[in-house]
Amino acid sequence: MKKVLDFVQRFDLLPRYELLLAAASGGMDSMCLLDFLYENGYRVCAAHYNHQLRGQEADMDEDLVRAWCAARRIPLCVGTGDVAAYAGENGLTIEEAARKLRYDFLNSVAGQTGAARIVTAHHANDNAETVLFHLARGTGMAGLAGIAPKNGRLVRPFLCLTREELAAYAKEHHVPYRTDATNADTALTRNFIRAEVLPKLCRVNAQAVEHIGETALRLRQEDEYLDSLAAAYLTELKMEAGAVTLPCAAVTQVPAVLRSRVLRLALDALGAGKKDFTAAHYDALAALCAGSGTAQLDLPGGVTARRADGVLTLCAHRRETPERVLLRAGETVRWGGFAITCRKCEKTVENSENTVILRGAALDAPLSVGAWDVRESMTLPVSRGSRSLKRLFAERGFSPDEREQTPVIRSGGAVAAVYGIGTDALFLPTDGESVCVLTFEKTAE
Amino acid sequence: MKKVLDFVQRFDLLPRYELLLAAASGGMDSMCLLDFLYENGYRVCAAHYNHQLRGQEADMDEDLVRAWCAARRIPLCVGTGDVAAYAGENGLTIEEAARKLRYDFLNSVAGQTGAARIVTAHHANDNAETVLFHLARGTGMAGLAGIAPKNGRLVRPFLCLTREELAAYAKEHHVPYRTDATNADTALTRNFIRAEVLPKLCRVNAQAVEHIGETALRLRQEDEYLDSLAAAYLTELKMEAGAVTLPCAAVTQVPAVLRSRVLRLALDALGAGKKDFTAAHYDALAALCAGSGTAQLDLPGGVTARRADGVLTLCAHRRETPERVLLRAGETVRWGGFAITCRKCEKTVENSENTVILRGAALDAPLSVGAWDVRESMTLPVSRGSRSLKRLFAERGFSPDEREQTPVIRSGGAVAAVYGIGTDALFLPTDGESVCVLTFEKTAE
Repeated sequence: MKKVLDFVQRFDLLPRYELLLAAASGGMDSMCLLDFLYENGYRVCAAHYNHQLRGQEADMDEDLVRAWCAARRIPLCVGTGDVAAYAGENGLTIEEAARKLRYDFLNSVAGQTGAARIVTAHHANDNAETVLFHLARGTGMAGLAGIAPKNGRLVRPFLCLTREELAAYAKEHHVPYRTDATNADTALTRNFIRAEVLPKLCRVNAQAVEHIGETALRLRQEDEYLDSLAAAYLTELKMEAGAVTLPCAAVTQVPAVLRSRVLRLALDALGAGKKDFTAAHYDALAALCAGSGTAQLDLPGGVTARRADGVLTLCAHRRETPERVLLRAGETVRWGGFAITCRKCEKTVENSENTVILRGAALDAPLSVGAWDVRESMTLPVSRGSRSLKRLFAERGFSPDEREQTPVIRSGGAVAAVYGIGTDALFLPTDGESVCVLTFEKTAE
Repeated sequence: MKKVLDFVQRFDLLPRYELLLAAASGGMDSMCLLDFLYENGYRVCAAHYNHQLRGQEADMDEDLVRAWCAARRIPLCVGTGDVAAYAGENGLTIEEAARKLRYDFLNSVAGQTGAARIVTAHHANDNAETVLFHLARGTGMAGLAGIAPKNGRLVRPFLCLTREELAAYAKEHHVPYRTDATNADTALTRNFIRAEVLPKLCRVNAQAVEHIGETALRLRQEDEYLDSLAAAYLTELKMEAGAVTLPCAAVTQVPAVLRSRVLRLALDALGAGKKDFTAAHYDALAALCAGSGTAQLDLPGGVTARRADGVLTLCAHRRETPERVLLRAGETVRWGGFAITCRKCEKTVENSENTVILRGAALDAPLSVGAWDVRESMTLPVSRGSRSLKRLFAERGFSPDEREQTPVIRSGGAVAAVYGIGTDALFLPTDGESVCVLTFEKTAE
């Protein structure tokens, strides 16, 4: 495995004499990783996360990792969580939820054990799949740069190997492993790319996987370099509570090709999310900086940009919390940024993003819309118990401003639904029952 | 077509009141282009190249373009050439040969008519296919930047449209066009990507074509910007006949991420090709600059790099032309960079890159290997007549040094074969005849 050792050295991935935490699923990739680290004399401990998604199969994966580690006296931490429930509660796909819980677990184990690095077994095929996924979804250089060999304490020494090379390693070194049957499920995007897209590209060029991996590494360096050039324009950036300021000249004097990177870094300093920001928003921000006099611009995520006296001020704007309003069948009310229409229907209507459907009985008590209260909880249908709104908002990554502006529907004193989060299990309509349909229309503020 | 007009304006593609030359194949894309240019009041002439590859079909394409242009009094130039023969003579695929001859024709027509721009109908799907092709083959940013909206006087106003959008345009505007049956032949790489890879990626994301196109445009700008940063390190580059010099410090002081771009630009100034240069060559060149004292390095394409007194000198090295040497059956001789073994066999041997096979009768006269002579010609089997070695070398893009170092095999006074070019029709073995096999092994110089 000279190839891996060279790669490890090139990116300084695995410091000798430091404790390394290997993520071990029991699959081929991670078992090869354990074997590689162990056989090359690294100080290693392992962590296995049981996603509880595949019943007995998952337990057999865990058993394999346990046995292998025990035989070599490698310390192992096993964690578990209800991925399906977590996905349901947080509006995530199973894959997203599993990833989040797994990395949370790895970080917590690394903290407990004092491991210097978390090592995962991602390889060149994973990288090529990621690049193709980003390419299809639309991305800049950062997306085409694929998987990072090193991201903080997270390292991937196998990124230089193809799946075929790993399989050869497993065979040569008699590495035991288990195959995850769900990998064949092409309904999952990543599996679809693995099974249907990448093999086709390999018919265009047999070395496509390696080539994409090398390209990604080169792009990563160039992307980071461009970011470092952009950062040099932020020397006059100032931070205050909830706001950052920057001379407009710092933006207008940036080469056009770096402008959106400079603005992105300023927004990062503010703590604003990337979500919903498009090229058009960066263009509008740049145009704001280029103008004269005083002007203002509303941006996604409750961010306001303001130009005054040649200074750009970016604010994570807190809007006033709207007062509670009663909802009545057949009426439309305004609440915050929404016009909310309440109807009573005799049969179930198709659910959509802008609709909340409650059992008709919700209208028997006073039905209202208002802002959240930090003491309130709700029980989502797929969840195992009640969760505080605070936790639900936090898991969704809602900013403080977004929390205040999210409609909470109450029937009597109880939370019936939270817009964008879900409906409480008690208020879900059952077949044959009349329903209460709330339609949310976003209004100009 | 506001989208196209916006795109045209953004990249300054189609200057009003200048004559534009539209490339017109008779297919949907180019007929839409003609229609678009004509209907939007551009000053336009057209050029059609008949590749003579599809017999009557090709003539019907030509007839369509002729009729359409005649009806609108649009000047049309029609050209033709034997693509198959050209491909055979130059070791090109049919696609490469067709492309080369077509663009040569377009350039010549543009020169004759005084057209300011040559306009082709490349669209977003073509761009996505190009990006995927480069991604599979291995490429840096320049390859992922896909098709340029503007490259010198060549412009592509339709790059912002998908094939579907073009089809909708054709339908709405009743644009007549003909379908090229060879587009369905997935043995051709581009057709395979079009039919098998891109549709799969569109299942990952329905907007994949647009997203790849937008990413390519952004990468193009970033790539050009990085090149401009690299060029700034070349202020002390000096050019002499066959050599460029640069202080080594100019290379060592460059940020690592720009280093190979700086070296590439210096090699471009020398007129050295990109062919055969890999990351390892740039690394070796950078290491040469970083060393002390005097040292030398041989690079692909006959380029020599030399460090002395802190100055890097890149030379397009002309080696001495080797003397003519006799070849005898059963013997190995050295000539230039080759060890050449001559054998006589009773049956035909499999041809390979390093073999030249002649009819056994070639050994009846003195058989020799030597350098080319500017007055000599040969007749390649697929060609329609004899061509000068000068022309054959030129078409292959051989540098002056490569020409001098290419083995020319002569039987008696006649050229029997040129290594890497082909065997003269008169010296091709026929079935049942004994053959003369020459094996070429590259030696260290």
